Amino acid sequence: MKKLVVIYSGGMDSFTALNKAVKEGFDVYALSFDYGQKHNKELIYAQNVCNELNVPHKILDIKSISTLFTSSSLVSDDINVPDGHYEADNMKSTVVPNRNMILISLAIGYAVDIEAEGVWYGAHSGDHLIYPDCRPEFVKVMDQASKVANFEPVYVHAPYLNTDKIGILKDGIKMGLDYSKTWTCYQGKEKACGTCGSCVERLEAFQANNIDDPVQYSI
Amino acid sequence: MKKLVVIYSGGMDSFTALNKAVKEGFDVYALSFDYGQKHNKELIYAQNVCNELNVPHKILDIKSISTLFTSSSLVSDDINVPDGHYEADNMKSTVVPNRNMILISLAIGYAVDIEAEGVWYGAHSGDHLIYPDCRPEFVKVMDQASKVANFEPVYVHAPYLNTDKIGILKDGIKMGLDYSKTWTCYQGKEKACGTCGSCVERLEAFQANNIDDPVQYSI
Repeated sequence: MKKLVVIYSGGMDSFTALNKAVKEGFDVYALSFDYGQKHNKELIYAQNVCNELNVPHKILDIKSISTLFTSSSLVSDDINVPDGHYEADNMKSTVVPNRNMILISLAIGYAVDIEAEGVWYGAHSGDHLIYPDCRPEFVKVMDQASKVANFEPVYVHAPYLNTDKIGILKDGIKMGLDYSKTWTCYQGKEKACGTCGSCVERLEAFQANNIDDPVQYSI
Repeated sequence: MKKLVVIYSGGMDSFTALNKAVKEGFDVYALSFDYGQKHNKELIYAQNVCNELNVPHKILDIKSISTLFTSSSLVSDDINVPDGHYEADNMKSTVVPNRNMILISLAIGYAVDIEAEGVWYGAHSGDHLIYPDCRPEFVKVMDQASKVANFEPVYVHAPYLNTDKIGILKDGIKMGLDYSKTWTCYQGKEKACGTCGSCVERLEAFQANNIDDPVQYSI
């Protein structure tokens, strides 16, 4: 079986990608990052899913990199995570500078070490406007960089690059996935807030697919 | 003054690159990595040089990434660092998988955060055969990736990409640099060992330039 590293945050996009990789017959190794998020609820969800799927799961502690950055609300206590819909200006402060390149680089290193052939990550078309490192041209050039960076080439692939969150959920429902096993909310409370950009987008995706989100919300 | 991030290990290549950047009038920010080397002597040397040059210096702790890797002698206690000249087969075990992509990705993130225009790193032509991520095609594609990965493009440049260690030293001597301020040896003892691949290459560079290495050796 071909080995594959899947970057897995515990949210619904990478949960769907992870399950897709398993169903396609890859020998999947999941990699999550503790990069100093304000809560680790999504990592606990990720761990539980990997246990159920019998997928080896590493959580890499990269909290120290927050000492490089001063401008992101996701890692800084001084800046609040903005509420409301994802829109470029509103959500710019949630960008950890160069985050995806950093995470993908680490995942490629892990892939080289375990002799995996590729790295999957959950970029999708809904993110293109907000995060430059979710765009097709970025995925393409990272794939090229990865193929020349090591003795054994590793490819980089985003299986949902040209799909939006609605389409990802549609695919996951078709696969019979249970989305109560995912955590999306930026806040780490008992119930999801339903008002942060992440929750709003998630709820819209469920609504567009005409199904109820199994996650409980406080609104 | 234009801001620049220089990846600075404390060794002679990046020491020369750092000084070159300062002399060319950039507003230089030095970035070193504690990636779990067996000693931190080179980091102490790096700190001292930055203090003298009045260059802001960050040492980023990325020791945790060694938990991803099992195959590198530089970070694993189970594998000895090989002695002798750098040769592809012999030194392959010193490769931390995908190291340069990881370090450059972090440096780009830092550059974005402080609004620097570029990242320099010390790849040189002597490393091409040994480290795939020191080759011109890698630098070129990382530069391309960096320019699309963030809202503000950051370039990636290796000022000595087409120069070997002998040429780097020649350039540094021309700049009047004092190489007693650099540490190259893989071992972290009081005197440099003179026998590891790093020492052997360094000594050859001084010999080729017909000057004495100011660093003390135990051989």
